[in-house]
Parts: sequence; structure tokens; C-alpha cells
Amino acid sequence: MDTIITVIRSVPIFSGLDGDEMEALLRIAVDRRYSRGELIFSDGDHADGFYVVAEGKVKIFKMSFDGKEQILHIFGPGEPVGEVPVFSGKSFPANAQAITACRLIFFPRKAIVALVTEKPSLALNMLAVLSMRLRQFTVQIENLSLKEVPERLAAYLMYLAREQDAVESVQLDISKGHLASLLGTIPETLSRIFAKMSGDGLIEVNGREIRLMDREGLADLAGLDVEEI
Amino acid sequence: MDTIITVIRSVPIFSGLDGDEMEALLRIAVDRRYSRGELIFSDGDHADGFYVVAEGKVKIFKMSFDGKEQILHIFGPGEPVGEVPVFSGKSFPANAQAITACRLIFFPRKAIVALVTEKPSLALNMLAVLSMRLRQFTVQIENLSLKEVPERLAAYLMYLAREQDAVESVQLDISKGHLASLLGTIPETLSRIFAKMSGDGLIEVNGREIRLMDREGLADLAGLDVEEI
Repeated sequence: MDTIITVIRSVPIFSGLDGDEMEALLRIAVDRRYSRGELIFSDGDHADGFYVVAEGKVKIFKMSFDGKEQILHIFGPGEPVGEVPVFSGKSFPANAQAITACRLIFFPRKAIVALVTEKPSLALNMLAVLSMRLRQFTVQIENLSLKEVPERLAAYLMYLAREQDAVESVQLDISKGHLASLLGTIPETLSRIFAKMSGDGLIEVNGREIRLMDREGLADLAGLDVEEI
Repeated sequence: MDTIITVIRSVPIFSGLDGDEMEALLRIAVDRRYSRGELIFSDGDHADGFYVVAEGKVKIFKMSFDGKEQILHIFGPGEPVGEVPVFSGKSFPANAQAITACRLIFFPRKAIVALVTEKPSLALNMLAVLSMRLRQFTVQIENLSLKEVPERLAAYLMYLAREQDAVESVQLDISKGHLASLLGTIPETLSRIFAKMSGDGLIEVNGREIRLMDREGLADLAGLDVEEI
């Protein structure tokens, strides 16, 4: 298992900090473990710091009164979690739950704000992370509001192909239940769409491996321009 | 009409800059006018800077292939527009259009990044703005995915009541067409819901003034806790 300082050194937002600054982070860092399914924080909870994932996967989600959930993000090693209230408001804007056994490193708010104030590289890295997340949210809002579920699934598969630099097949990095929640639908609907897209010759599904049989057809369904493929 | 330096001094994200820094901003600022309905930038356009609204109102929106639009934000004087690509990516993630005659001040990317690097107060202000927008997006995604349109409208009215510090009535600050797009619906559906809520004694509609006849009932419909009212 990595020591905390090894984790800190591997986190992209901390790149640009020197050895002393990483040591300063080490002194305020708190090592926390969560078992699979454990809640890390709840929507509206008072926040006095943020987390970085060291091991495992965390889902960030909103929940309706009747228990339907909408996943906003799924974060893995090296990614910050719960950083919004560090800079505005005092509470977490969503729920966070461990979807595998997890190890998170917690950093208290005050110390991070002080470090951001001293280190422009950290400020720019945090600005880049928040901007990237805003960009992802604009896509998610577009998907939920302006696209039907088959278009959303096709767009997600094309996104995975870009992420994984893959041409022939992509690996789903989350369960189909989580994928349904991420795309704003239910597992039964998602299964029907997987079956329909297979029947149409767009994909072939083997467990979590999805073979892309017709990339142009998928891009077309996703509503992407050719340059975006 | 205000001079550019007066506008710069009144912009919240620039608070904390000293006189020399405001003068430096003045030297790179570009004063731009847009007529009502004019497009300011398009989704995917290359971005080499961001804007601050000096006068008027700007809507930020996504558009589907068949012309349906989803509004993400409506910004007014003092608010930054199009700042995401300053810190990540190189293109605007959505469209921006003047919904009234507008005056915007444009700031080139390079100069702003240099200033953020030197001035922690600007970095923290930008971080606060981006965090706040992430928070708003989590609410919008929750609304689109987990709430029906009447709940979204009730939540929006309660939001306006908080913003306007109002108890008895709120003023819609945008047209009903824009409100429909913001809530992810069409004007006809929104009109029906306004009529239904009036019939149920929750509100009374007089043009853009909405009288809140039953705040508890509205909060209930919006799915808010009593403390959030």
C-alpha cells in the first residue's frame, strides 16, 4: 500500500508543488478507509475539507425523495472529491458513496485555502479541475434535456472510445446499473437499448466489453460531427 | 454610460485587485456591443478569452439538432461569461446570445491567466465563481433528472424568493419562454402548470409578478426542507 506522501505526489492537482509544500500537505492529510457501499458524505452535510481518492471508486450522486438516483460523476485514484464547498458555500452539494472498498485522503479546508493563496500552480490546477467539471456538466445537462437515452448511450460509448484511445472495442468501467443512473434511466431501459443497438449491428456486447461494429452509425446516433469522432 | 474602469471596479471577481492591477486590466479590456438576439459565441468555437457583462442580459444555452434549446444560465451585469476555456480546453462549451441589447467587456486569456498567477485574490474569486456554478449545475441536473416540471417551477419560485429576499411575491426576471427553456420544458406546458398552480391556490400570476399565496405548499411541492424555505 502506498504511503500518503506517495499518493500526494501522484495527484495531478498537486503537481507543481515543491517537496516542502508536499510535506506540508502530508502533515494535514488524514487517511480514511471506507468499505464498499459506505456513505462518505451526504448532500447538505457541513463540509470542512475535501478528499482525494487514493484507491477505489467513488460515485457522486443526487437522490430523489422516492429513492431514484442520478449519478453526477464516478471518480477514481488521483481525483479530488467534494472540493466545491472549499471555495463556495459550506455544504456538500451532492452525496458521495464508495462503490468499491476505498481509501481517501482528507485535507482540511483552511490549510488548502492557505496553500492555494500561496501557490499559483495549485490555484490554476484547481481552476482547471473545476472548469473541466463544468464542461462535463454542460454535456450531461444537454444529454438529459435534449437527447433520448439511445443517443446518450451512443455518446457515452464514443466518449469511452476517446478516453480509452480505442477503435474496435471499449471496456465499461462501471456496472450497468451505475451506467443507467449516469445516463438518467433505469437498468431495464438500458438493457433494451443495448439489445436494440446490437440488433441494429451497431455494437456487440460481451459482459463489460462493447465491440464498436459501426462507429459512424454510433457517432451519427450520438449526434456528433465527424471531427468529434 | 459607465467607463470601462468603472465597470471593472464593480465586478465582484475583480474585488481585491489594487488600482494598478485594475489599470492593467483596463489596458487589455475590449468594449463590445451586441444587439438583442445577437450570438456572442457558439458551442465549440475556439476561445481566446472571456467576457464580463457590463449592461444587459446574456443567455448560455445548449441546442439540439432539431432546434430545441436548454438554457444553462442567464447572466447580468457584473457576471463573467465563457470563463471555462480560460482554464481548461480551448473551446466554448455552450452558446451565448444577447437576450437584450448588451455591452460586454472582453479580456484575453493570456493576460487573465498571468494575473490569476500573480493575484491569489483573483484566483480565489474565480474558484468561488466556478464552484458556485458547479453547485447550480448539480441542482439543475437533479431538477432535470429527478423532478417533474411542476416541482422544478416551485423550486425556481422559492429560489427567486430567496434571491429577491421576498415573502409575498416575486418578479420573474426573464420571459416565460426563457423560463420554459431553463426548466427543460416548452412554453405550452409551463402555461398549463402556472394555471394549475393558480387553481390550486399556490400562486397568483399578474404578468411577471407571481404572488406566493401558499409558501409552505410551494416548498412542499419543490421538495424542500422547511429550513431551506
